[in-house]
Amino acid sequence: MSLASLSRDELTALHEHQTKAYDQLVERGLRLDLTRGKPAAAQLDLSNALLALPGEGDYRDVSGADCRNYGGTQGLLEIREIFAELLNVPVGQLVAGDNASLSIMHDTLVYSLLKGAVDSARPWAQEEKITFICPVPGYDRHFALCEQFGIEMVTVPLGPDGPDLDAVRELVANDPSVRGIWVVPTYANPNGAVYTEEVTRALVSMPAAAADFKIFWDNAYAVHHLTDRQAPALDVLGLAEEAGNPNRVFLFASTSKITFAGSGVSFFAGSPPNVDWYLKHLSKRTIGPDKLNHLRHARFLRDADGVRDLMARHRSIIEPKFQIVTDILAKRLGDLEAATWTDPDGGYFISLDVADGTATRVVALAKAAGIAMTGAGAAFPYGNDPRDRNIRIAPTFPSPDELADAIEGLSVCVLLAATEKLLAD
Amino acid sequence: MSLASLSRDELTALHEHQTKAYDQLVERGLRLDLTRGKPAAAQLDLSNALLALPGEGDYRDVSGADCRNYGGTQGLLEIREIFAELLNVPVGQLVAGDNASLSIMHDTLVYSLLKGAVDSARPWAQEEKITFICPVPGYDRHFALCEQFGIEMVTVPLGPDGPDLDAVRELVANDPSVRGIWVVPTYANPNGAVYTEEVTRALVSMPAAAADFKIFWDNAYAVHHLTDRQAPALDVLGLAEEAGNPNRVFLFASTSKITFAGSGVSFFAGSPPNVDWYLKHLSKRTIGPDKLNHLRHARFLRDADGVRDLMARHRSIIEPKFQIVTDILAKRLGDLEAATWTDPDGGYFISLDVADGTATRVVALAKAAGIAMTGAGAAFPYGNDPRDRNIRIAPTFPSPDELADAIEGLSVCVLLAATEKLLAD
Repeated sequence: MSLASLSRDELTALHEHQTKAYDQLVERGLRLDLTRGKPAAAQLDLSNALLALPGEGDYRDVSGADCRNYGGTQGLLEIREIFAELLNVPVGQLVAGDNASLSIMHDTLVYSLLKGAVDSARPWAQEEKITFICPVPGYDRHFALCEQFGIEMVTVPLGPDGPDLDAVRELVANDPSVRGIWVVPTYANPNGAVYTEEVTRALVSMPAAAADFKIFWDNAYAVHHLTDRQAPALDVLGLAEEAGNPNRVFLFASTSKITFAGSGVSFFAGSPPNVDWYLKHLSKRTIGPDKLNHLRHARFLRDADGVRDLMARHRSIIEPKFQIVTDILAKRLGDLEAATWTDPDGGYFISLDVADGTATRVVALAKAAGIAMTGAGAAFPYGNDPRDRNIRIAPTFPSPDELADAIEGLSVCVLLAATEKLLAD
Repeated sequence: MSLASLSRDELTALHEHQTKAYDQLVERGLRLDLTRGKPAAAQLDLSNALLALPGEGDYRDVSGADCRNYGGTQGLLEIREIFAELLNVPVGQLVAGDNASLSIMHDTLVYSLLKGAVDSARPWAQEEKITFICPVPGYDRHFALCEQFGIEMVTVPLGPDGPDLDAVRELVANDPSVRGIWVVPTYANPNGAVYTEEVTRALVSMPAAAADFKIFWDNAYAVHHLTDRQAPALDVLGLAEEAGNPNRVFLFASTSKITFAGSGVSFFAGSPPNVDWYLKHLSKRTIGPDKLNHLRHARFLRDADGVRDLMARHRSIIEPKFQIVTDILAKRLGDLEAATWTDPDGGYFISLDVADGTATRVVALAKAAGIAMTGAGAAFPYGNDPRDRNIRIAPTFPSPDELADAIEGLSVCVLLAATEKLLAD
């Protein structure tokens, strides 16, 4: 029996029921936070061995270099070898950096703006306008980078296997101000989309009005599987080369949600000219990354299978949390068809679409009841969700009990807002 | 008996003698590197306890925050407290970052270019021209940053207690394109200059044509004393505030030459508006620094006295190396007055001025004899030493024996080039 099919009397009864439920919720005085995709303490504990690594006598890399000293801009070979396999890129085209791939994205934008990218006619900052395509819902920090640097954003809808390709094709082919598209190819933040090889081939091969059009390929969740349907890391650099657009892809990744969120290793990959370009500019900024952190990670992770084993242990902690969310949403909202949500095969988020025009109200109701959710619209450029319906749920950080409380409470808010809206219409 | 006073015959005899000495030097087939100011392995060994810190159960800071997770853009309080005392800045105005203060300098330039600094009318990238004052000799990586971003550089002479203030005053007062001056206030790279309080007061108080004129105060060697004449860290932020120019100073520092050169902690300080400005832009780039590295350093260094003790141990390793250099230079070049050099009270360098017009030749001769020196002119913008006389000596990295060999060899090259030049004139 869907909400839409209820009579006005039934709606009124449901609204009264939810109002009471909400009052009880507020009375409980919860203090729960589902705002950010942070690993739980139990996940961080999996990597506690890192806290005493590399260990007192251990500071030389495989080449014999003293990792305590300056140098080595591209990062340690041993950590690059592990992630070259996992990310499916040639190790020579992989750079290991410090603790945040967001910083590498920021810096590639900065270098493009102030110096120009490979294949740019001039620095982007000297162009009248730079535009990025933003598949939505998407990652708020990507959009914040564009906003920071005055890069215009145009949205395209993101489906379960990639963005609306016709919309992307038209923008890329006809608008020379379009210089980038944000892509989270594996278990996208927040809707769990997995870009297929077919979609990827289309993106790397489509004609572009701008010679320096770049795909910002943020493979943040490459190994973050929640099921046995494990999405492979596509050979996006090889596909781009094959399509005759070798310099089109900037690839990013990190261990932030593999080891320690605040103290991991980040990665950049691209064509050899893109890597040369990145390292040339990076070498003005630093004399080298924290190589001891690379060594620490290489000693702890050992090899690609070491990472896979670790991710299986993460899965065993967080898969039940995703299950809690989808179970409660199904029980509370499913029959009423009061919302739709994703059931991702990996990553860190569930994307919840509530009744049109009610997401802001739902988040406000939840906040007043002590349940902090990411702001409504956060998954859209400028925070502007045109249908005001999308809410991002980050299930990993709270305990299972807290999470269940939060989602039960959130469901009350969803129904209260929906019935309010239907009664007001 | 100075070179200048020699007769032509005496000169010819000296030249022949040096030519033979140089041939013998080349035959020795040395492989020595004095190019960069890198700590020696024995110095790095002083901090080897860091390699196993913070240790397996230890990941919470003084506030109870889990340092393994995201967050904490300003950096850990405990490491900021230690360096607030050493750098003589309020702890609330100090930011702790990742492993390279050069990166913070880079980023403050980037933010100024793309967003504008506090007190800027518009982003610097939108100005016709941006000019920085470069006291020379100075630090090549500072100049490389300016060159990278198309910032014009004008030089002023740097004496033992600061730059030519009249020259600086005139530029700052009259040229609105002048937005910055590079300052290494303590034991400057490479000439060991120590900015006095009087000079510092003049710099922070002089009238400026540009409201957003900044002093890039790179206190890289604040605690790197080589003698008991220990230069104090001046309260430059307080002096700037007192002078009515609170936002004029960006302060930088790091532990690169205190703990591990590649894996240290960097610092930024400024007025509260400057710190807010820096953190606002930084928070687009990262969700936080490597807080575990902050914790690791706080555990190891303990407090400001822990740093002072550690620096005393550094001094005991490198002071004899500086002595080797100045002893050999005095013995080989002193009586002949064939060069002048600094005898710094701290820092990492000795600045050698050879006969005008011969520095490039000396470095080439040394290179052919297997002694790698920093390129002639490196201490000048665009690598252009107008008198072609300055050579930077970095004594810390080689062993004492290697260092002695290198400086003996370098002295031969200096005399050979000088006699060549005098005979050709």
